[in-house]
Amino acid sequence: MLPYISEFLGTMLLIILGDGVVANVTLNKSGMKGAGSIQITFAWGLAVMIPACIFGAASGASFNPALTLALAMDGSFAWSMVPGYILAQFAGAFVGAVIVYLLFKAQFDATKEAGTKLGVFCTAPSVPNTGLNMFSEAVGTFVLVFAIKGMANVPGLTDGLGKFIVFGIIVSIGMSLGGLTGYAINPARDLGPRFAHTVLPIHEKGSSSWGYAIVPLLGPILGALAAVALYGAIPW
Amino acid sequence: MLPYISEFLGTMLLIILGDGVVANVTLNKSGMKGAGSIQITFAWGLAVMIPACIFGAASGASFNPALTLALAMDGSFAWSMVPGYILAQFAGAFVGAVIVYLLFKAQFDATKEAGTKLGVFCTAPSVPNTGLNMFSEAVGTFVLVFAIKGMANVPGLTDGLGKFIVFGIIVSIGMSLGGLTGYAINPARDLGPRFAHTVLPIHEKGSSSWGYAIVPLLGPILGALAAVALYGAIPW
Amino acid sequence: MLPYISEFLGTMLLIILGDGVVANVTLNKSGMKGAGSIQITFAWGLAVMIPACIFGAASGASFNPALTLALAMDGSFAWSMVPGYILAQFAGAFVGAVIVYLLFKAQFDATKEAGTKLGVFCTAPSVPNTGLNMFSEAVGTFVLVFAIKGMANVPGLTDGLGKFIVFGIIVSIGMSLGGLTGYAINPARDLGPRFAHTVLPIHEKGSSSWGYAIVPLLGPILGALAAVALYGAIPW
Amino acid sequence: MLPYISEFLGTMLLIILGDGVVANVTLNKSGMKGAGSIQITFAWGLAVMIPACIFGAASGASFNPALTLALAMDGSFAWSMVPGYILAQFAGAFVGAVIVYLLFKAQFDATKEAGTKLGVFCTAPSVPNTGLNMFSEAVGTFVLVFAIKGMANVPGLTDGLGKFIVFGIIVSIGMSLGGLTGYAINPARDLGPRFAHTVLPIHEKGSSSWGYAIVPLLGPILGALAAVALYGAIPW
Repeated sequence: MLPYISEFLGTMLLIILGDGVVANVTLNKSGMKGAGSIQITFAWGLAVMIPACIFGAASGASFNPALTLALAMDGSFAWSMVPGYILAQFAGAFVGAVIVYLLFKAQFDATKEAGTKLGVFCTAPSVPNTGLNMFSEAVGTFVLVFAIKGMANVPGLTDGLGKFIVFGIIVSIGMSLGGLTGYAINPARDLGPRFAHTVLPIHEKGSSSWGYAIVPLLGPILGALAAVALYGAIPW
Repeated sequence: MLPYISEFLGTMLLIILGDGVVANVTLNKSGMKGAGSIQITFAWGLAVMIPACIFGAASGASFNPALTLALAMDGSFAWSMVPGYILAQFAGAFVGAVIVYLLFKAQFDATKEAGTKLGVFCTAPSVPNTGLNMFSEAVGTFVLVFAIKGMANVPGLTDGLGKFIVFGIIVSIGMSLGGLTGYAINPARDLGPRFAHTVLPIHEKGSSSWGYAIVPLLGPILGALAAVALYGAIPW
Repeated sequence: MLPYISEFLGTMLLIILGDGVVANVTLNKSGMKGAGSIQITFAWGLAVMIPACIFGAASGASFNPALTLALAMDGSFAWSMVPGYILAQFAGAFVGAVIVYLLFKAQFDATKEAGTKLGVFCTAPSVPNTGLNMFSEAVGTFVLVFAIKGMANVPGLTDGLGKFIVFGIIVSIGMSLGGLTGYAINPARDLGPRFAHTVLPIHEKGSSSWGYAIVPLLGPILGALAAVALYGAIPW
Repeated sequence: MLPYISEFLGTMLLIILGDGVVANVTLNKSGMKGAGSIQITFAWGLAVMIPACIFGAASGASFNPALTLALAMDGSFAWSMVPGYILAQFAGAFVGAVIVYLLFKAQFDATKEAGTKLGVFCTAPSVPNTGLNMFSEAVGTFVLVFAIKGMANVPGLTDGLGKFIVFGIIVSIGMSLGGLTGYAINPARDLGPRFAHTVLPIHEKGSSSWGYAIVPLLGPILGALAAVALYGAIPW
């Protein structure tokens, strides 16, 4: 049971800290409003690193259905555990987003723009274009999964230092490619909070943009599968 | 005697560097005025990490009554030392705040806004709401204590690298949730300097807002206790 | 074959993440437009560190003809492999730039200034002056190569931590000297993407400024050679 | 001879990267003008860390007469080597500042404000007040030296990770206290470049403010001596 609890709590914490930073720097009446993309990308890196430290030994700290699927395809993870992991990840992401909403209730109430409020929960493209947006999510997730696989090539890398490399990978993808689609690179990170947006009684919330949801669902999966395929094809 | 000296000096250094960065970026006539929340959150992380390096071996580097209480509740720290630790932490925080005042004396004199001056010493909510503010402090401290406990799960983690994870935890909480209440997440960090604000002859200082003090006192304690309770309930 | 594949893929990834961050913060309609030089320099550090983790064991993770040449001059790298490495590096940089163009196609289309578009691909001096610009590139690359050599002096440095020092070296050069010429410090990083700019059908792209190309070609080579010469002359 | 060469080259590199970042973000026509204090403080941390990696084994990487004196007072460094170290540090800082001037020659020519140009070389107080300024430099250097001594308390700390703690210490002092006097915390870092400012043919350079030089000379020495005195008095 521990691995599933771990994926649930880890993804919940990931979203509390990750959606948290977006709320923290974009909602009205937050004391850090306007801090910008450096704070967002840096904090998302920590939002992955911290639960990875806590839950890495218990579940592998995937927190990401695309990564879980790719590792199963790769033979590094048991297919039998995939459905439970993915369910735990989506559930954790949903609960994390609810907690962010409760924490920032007064700030949500003070923010008029529906797009800003939705942006706390889930991603949106800067220029809508299904093909390019999908490509962006696929490339970002490719880098994520390829780099995580590639950490095995660092001789004598300790578990502790590996967490910092994971931090660096997440920050890198965000800083370098995040302006395209908000770098979901993880279907649970996007769809769990999007569902929370749909069901929560947020003041003047507007659409949850489910029409876009296919991009952060499919793009990351394609990119993750491509990463393990290429990684496996290289004669290391 | 060493552990108490260590908690005193460590918390003093924490506040010199932590209240220091707030003074450094918010007071008039400071050469770094306006640097914003990235500098504040990054520097608070270092403000914890540096005394943790110096004093970790001597006292465990708690510097935080809520953490000390939670570790005692948890059985990881002797109840008999709790009162002395808490006293040392409050005293260190008070002295640290006095030193910050002396250092930035000319800048305090050049700053008119009473709220800005108080903000160097202690925390304040962006939207006053006792319930939500308490919840914010509890969640922030929950993440702090849960993550510190969770560092034990990283296989082979060295003491040195652990200090950097602590840095990451503090920066993460600040960047992701700090805009709500200024993330005291530590009663001594807030109340020691608040008391310094009360007794120091600061020019046109205004109220010390003791009415709010219950939040950074109680919120962190509740969050810390919840963290060790949940941590202990997980079948690791 | 692996070392050449590794230099090709590593340099490609370097440019996806490195040219990527410039596109991400300078092109119109990117969600992170305007983030500025802290994000650019931090992300370039990660853009080197991440492929260095993945490909370090396979090829040494040079990704830089000036470094490869200097290490060969130094006796630390086989001359017979130099041509293949350099070819792989230029090819990887070219392909990386093409991928950045595809990713940011809509943002390139939305950006009028030809200089901004060229700046995503390759470097340009803030004040054109062949002598000073060459000196800037030489000093930057000198620091790069001298520091990489000097990492051997850190007792017991692990491979993993060494990657973070490499990150620090790249960020340092960028933050301290990058405003002069954009710190190519690597002929492949500049000329590969410059060639991509020449051949790609970018909307209203303007000149590829090949007249300047001698600077990021020759400056880095001179600086790298000076670094190994001085390093070898010190009686360590 | 190696330790003296090492202190000379290390301090030179420290100033190239440290004075470099100030030039890079404050002079007109630098491509990174306006990046602000986060870039300055972060890059100064790297400016110390990188030569510390290269030269730590050869000379201990002091680069700072106040630190050298305090370590001699402490019994951790031979008095017989102190004069040569200090001479090498001042000479290295002078040469480093000359190189920064040459690198940024066009940017110095394009900058009218004499204070901005002087600020690339050496420090100045935000509010002139000899007593408070001296106190600020003393407290900053106290933190530096106390923290460097205190690193010995981290069990099993490796040389490599220790360099990152040094980075953190420098960034912390800068971010938290740097707005007071520009945190020289090192007489060579201030006076060597100040002398370069005096002798170099800088266009419309104005005064070198030697009247202030006593502060970055004496303040750091007093703070460093206080740090080793307190450190030695604690019953570790």
